[in-house]
Amino acid sequence: MKFEVLKTDGNARAGVLTTAHSVIQTPIFMPVGTVGAVKSLDATDMREILDAKIILANTYHMYLRPGSRVVAEFGGLHGFCKFNRSFLTDSGGFQAFSLRANTKNDEGGIKFKSHIDGSIHYFTPRSVLDTQYELDSDIMMILDDLVELPRDPHALGADEKARLKKRIDLSVTRTIKWAREAIDYHKFKQSQGAGLDQNIFGIIQGGTDYDARKICAQALCEMPFDGLAIGGLSVGEANEHMYETVEAVMPFIDAARPRYLMGVGTPEDIVENVQRGVDMFDCVMPTRNARNGTLFTSFGKIAIKNARFVNDHEPIDPECECYTCRRYSRGYLNHLFRAHELTFFRLASLHNLHYYLNLMKQIREAITAGKFSEFKREFYAKRSGGEI
Amino acid sequence: MKFEVLKTDGNARAGVLTTAHSVIQTPIFMPVGTVGAVKSLDATDMREILDAKIILANTYHMYLRPGSRVVAEFGGLHGFCKFNRSFLTDSGGFQAFSLRANTKNDEGGIKFKSHIDGSIHYFTPRSVLDTQYELDSDIMMILDDLVELPRDPHALGADEKARLKKRIDLSVTRTIKWAREAIDYHKFKQSQGAGLDQNIFGIIQGGTDYDARKICAQALCEMPFDGLAIGGLSVGEANEHMYETVEAVMPFIDAARPRYLMGVGTPEDIVENVQRGVDMFDCVMPTRNARNGTLFTSFGKIAIKNARFVNDHEPIDPECECYTCRRYSRGYLNHLFRAHELTFFRLASLHNLHYYLNLMKQIREAITAGKFSEFKREFYAKRSGGEI
Repeated sequence: MKFEVLKTDGNARAGVLTTAHSVIQTPIFMPVGTVGAVKSLDATDMREILDAKIILANTYHMYLRPGSRVVAEFGGLHGFCKFNRSFLTDSGGFQAFSLRANTKNDEGGIKFKSHIDGSIHYFTPRSVLDTQYELDSDIMMILDDLVELPRDPHALGADEKARLKKRIDLSVTRTIKWAREAIDYHKFKQSQGAGLDQNIFGIIQGGTDYDARKICAQALCEMPFDGLAIGGLSVGEANEHMYETVEAVMPFIDAARPRYLMGVGTPEDIVENVQRGVDMFDCVMPTRNARNGTLFTSFGKIAIKNARFVNDHEPIDPECECYTCRRYSRGYLNHLFRAHELTFFRLASLHNLHYYLNLMKQIREAITAGKFSEFKREFYAKRSGGEI
Repeated sequence: MKFEVLKTDGNARAGVLTTAHSVIQTPIFMPVGTVGAVKSLDATDMREILDAKIILANTYHMYLRPGSRVVAEFGGLHGFCKFNRSFLTDSGGFQAFSLRANTKNDEGGIKFKSHIDGSIHYFTPRSVLDTQYELDSDIMMILDDLVELPRDPHALGADEKARLKKRIDLSVTRTIKWAREAIDYHKFKQSQGAGLDQNIFGIIQGGTDYDARKICAQALCEMPFDGLAIGGLSVGEANEHMYETVEAVMPFIDAARPRYLMGVGTPEDIVENVQRGVDMFDCVMPTRNARNGTLFTSFGKIAIKNARFVNDHEPIDPECECYTCRRYSRGYLNHLFRAHELTFFRLASLHNLHYYLNLMKQIREAITAGKFSEFKREFYAKRSGGEI
């Protein structure tokens, strides 16, 4: 992997990340293909209609079904899913958090109860890499230990604060230990000829505790990871705490490597965090919102099921040049949504992902032109008109 | 509309039907787009990927939602759905039958209780045409009165036979009366300048009673319909009764006009009825089967969820050149189906509809070459290998 920062504008930066499968201009948004398909879309949609350069797949999901060995026999994710650009795979750490009723973390790793058949599985820093070698993703994420955050961590009572601090410190200690195991294992495997085209990113934990974040960032930056992620945000805390934490930790993350803010977020979150120096994002929001009829536009979100769209001949966003907006009216999409037609989910997902990918393109152009502040002002000004 | 028979081979015939929106080679299969979209697919899929020349929409469904007036304001079905080739719309007669718990037929028409909001609506031979003028379909169907058939009508006891005969006679009398009202109304409307590019097909009823079919066919053929449909088959009776009824009624249907067998059927049903002189077919089978994972191939049907496909690197049908078979393996499709991924429904529907449309193409080529019998032998021989 090669990463080069081409231009900075304040802390925002435009760069280019090159993997064995694609050239990715940053800042980038990576659509989420949980089980090896971005929901409602196929590989041709992703490549030819959306021109996505990199998508995510979930290690936990692919491990359980169809199993990473099955995927390996198809030539990894690229051969199985037939998306021939880059894949990033997460480690299962986030699933341990989001499915926490069915998981248990200990010093060695995470015990999962399968959501499919109830079977028990133990993920360790090494085992999740073994799975990712079989998936043959371009970017592998290490196993990490996430902490659930309260909406306002500063408003906690003394006892709750102490409990949270203790949990965050444990998370950081464990994540650093697991990171060391992971990077050592990966370097060993590469010395044996495995995963030579695969890259590995560390994940910085620490909740909204700036000291913990700093300790974790510094420890991970000393290890030869190909990139560094900020994990454990957008997990309950209010937006301003997310922004402030990213701002606080950024000075301690090596500027020569790509910085990835995991699981984030709204268009506003993306603009705010690009400004703070983030290069990579992923989130289920565009596809999940598409499926419930919430569509992103340059002037804010719209709920397509609303009765005022029944007779509306305009496209979702008259400024949008996506597949859906070049073909269909709000009226037809309103009808498809109300009739529960399957094709609605695809048309809406194509629109929302186009919105996100096009937002990133505009952001990159603004940074390259040294006009990110103007871009940001304009971005918010358009949205202040409110919903149509 | 223009219809020309170019070649006959036995009773099978290859022709060409020209509407204001497309040139349709017959025999043709028309995919069903119930609410103005073929399930899981969009207009571009239908035109550019499947190259479908004509699709169906349901008058009953479009009338209830979004309402035919809304559709009219978008420029009819073509403007609303953005499929710029031909549409055929049914009349609501079949919905009266399939939703019969919520409908009541009388001399004047059919009373419906909406499946959406329980509201009451009365469809008459004229009102269904008014709705279809608003939908601006290329081919309109008249209101007809369907009869449910027992699996083996010949095996009924004397009383049941008499009851069925009485119901069939009522259906034929009513359907002829409604047909007269419909054609008179349509000719009047056209004399006023309405629906000039729209064509109207009569529907022959009569169950599996050959005399009733003959009476109905002769009566309708005396009216200036643009085409004639055989309705009220594939509604419970065994296949051989359907085939025999089509064979019995065919001599009484004007050979100069297109003949449409409504709601039929399996690939075998299509081959059998082309042989008996049918030019047009429609059925939800390819799309409905796609959604439950049943895929059509040259060697029979397969259930893609079957565990033996998990590691299968072959396409659904190695002989198939559809969008899906040119890209994805049975293994990946098995995975998508098991994971309930939405994109599976589109990929499977594209495959099954390609299978049907390609079957029609092979049939037309066989008739044109005077080799329909050889084609039919080969068609059955390939399938006798059974499931893979």
